Amino acid sequence: MKTYQHEVKYYECDRMGVTHHSNYIRFMEEARVDWLDQLGYGFDKIEADNVFSPVVSVSCEYKHPTTFKDVIDIEVNISKMSEMKFEFTYTMRKGEKVVCVGKSLHCFIENNRPVAISKRLPEFFKVVSGQMTHSEIG
Amino acid sequence: MKTYQHEVKYYECDRMGVTHHSNYIRFMEEARVDWLDQLGYGFDKIEADNVFSPVVSVSCEYKHPTTFKDVIDIEVNISKMSEMKFEFTYTMRKGEKVVCVGKSLHCFIENNRPVAISKRLPEFFKVVSGQMTHSEIG
Amino acid sequence: MKTYQHEVKYYECDRMGVTHHSNYIRFMEEARVDWLDQLGYGFDKIEADNVFSPVVSVSCEYKHPTTFKDVIDIEVNISKMSEMKFEFTYTMRKGEKVVCVGKSLHCFIENNRPVAISKRLPEFFKVVSGQMTHSEIG
Amino acid sequence: MKTYQHEVKYYECDRMGVTHHSNYIRFMEEARVDWLDQLGYGFDKIEADNVFSPVVSVSCEYKHPTTFKDVIDIEVNISKMSEMKFEFTYTMRKGEKVVCVGKSLHCFIENNRPVAISKRLPEFFKVVSGQMTHSEIG
Repeated sequence: MKTYQHEVKYYECDRMGVTHHSNYIRFMEEARVDWLDQLGYGFDKIEADNVFSPVVSVSCEYKHPTTFKDVIDIEVNISKMSEMKFEFTYTMRKGEKVVCVGKSLHCFIENNRPVAISKRLPEFFKVVSGQMTHSEIG
Repeated sequence: MKTYQHEVKYYECDRMGVTHHSNYIRFMEEARVDWLDQLGYGFDKIEADNVFSPVVSVSCEYKHPTTFKDVIDIEVNISKMSEMKFEFTYTMRKGEKVVCVGKSLHCFIENNRPVAISKRLPEFFKVVSGQMTHSEIG
Repeated sequence: MKTYQHEVKYYECDRMGVTHHSNYIRFMEEARVDWLDQLGYGFDKIEADNVFSPVVSVSCEYKHPTTFKDVIDIEVNISKMSEMKFEFTYTMRKGEKVVCVGKSLHCFIENNRPVAISKRLPEFFKVVSGQMTHSEIG
Repeated sequence: MKTYQHEVKYYECDRMGVTHHSNYIRFMEEARVDWLDQLGYGFDKIEADNVFSPVVSVSCEYKHPTTFKDVIDIEVNISKMSEMKFEFTYTMRKGEKVVCVGKSLHCFIENNRPVAISKRLPEFFKVVSGQMTHSEIG
């Protein structure tokens, strides 16, 4: 899997001259979208199947500031999986330096009800679980 | 009609320390939403009626910068109306000083097709046209 | 201390029709700014003193979706304090229902170096610590 | 000069399922930044020279909606120039179809005072004016 690259935009920087912390949550979404695309299961494909994937929780540790024109390399890993939820981790680097690490937890819904993704979209579940390396499937 | 107030947020300011210019387009939307609410015809009500109102064009002249915690007073006026389109103007002030003037043009669609709002939602059309002061109904 | 209110804007909602999850991080900042203002120590005052307060980490648990025009009441608490760092917690409610709970950790810098806020701005430190209720000062 | 490409992000789409109109103003900035970079005169370089370039006015005509994952090709042209101001036009296309056309006017300031860019940064002025094709230098 290729890392995702986000180049920091002018409008993403704040009065302190650095990338506003809220934007990393958006970069994580961009990287997750790209990761799923690389697997052949984009958000758009899942949504076309009437399944949506809300964010259950998110966290972010800011290690070093970044600014306008910095290119942030984002490595996405699927760190936990159950029938109902996926957890992703994100390692964001500027060159060799880790600037931010993040985590997000996702469930799946159809008609506003939670669904077991392993049953609802079994092929998708299988492909994603094939990316699990260091962790167990819950 | 009361003017709408937007207090500039920290995350709305950029590297120059001032409100990023793109945000005024959002403030205009906030003020327009409030203006329609004051008339009793909010976006949510129109959208519940399955009518959506895309923006056809927008423009903005920046007179003076604003920054974090500035309170911007936004006066909304309906400046032109036809069966198909509404034009709003926005005068944004910080205290007495005009900081920005904007304009936006809107059409109405239902099932992705343009609709004559005068026929589709005649009461709404009537109430809005009652707010026209300096301009003619096109 | 009064809770902070954020009314969800049209542009804050996403394709799923709900408030995009990244925006809650911004609402937390708004509420924190307001909380400090209520204590008489706004960001602008501290920044005028050449002290900046970067976010060290942030987390958010999404309990229930919110959407356009929902009014979110945000209760801010200072949950941990040390000489170097402050931790805030945020309870966001729509009516009685908790929609989101968040947490953020902050340090203080001057000329890009961390400072002990208890020494650099002792009065500010004292006033904030006066708001600590359930937790110990670290 | 190469056109700039922006792929629409999930968080840039609104409740109508389309790219929120305010975001095009940001895409214009991204494309302008890239255009200046291609000429070897990035924002960062000019700002390092203590010259800032606020936006004087902006306008946008929305021709067709775009949505999540659409790739927007943005062609930037310098359409007017004077000693004090630059005007850019933007033609945004999805494939062959023009989805949006925009315009922005910029001045230059140093220590909060307007400067004649032809005198303050003559080489930059010369390089940009070399890109003028259809228009006269004002």
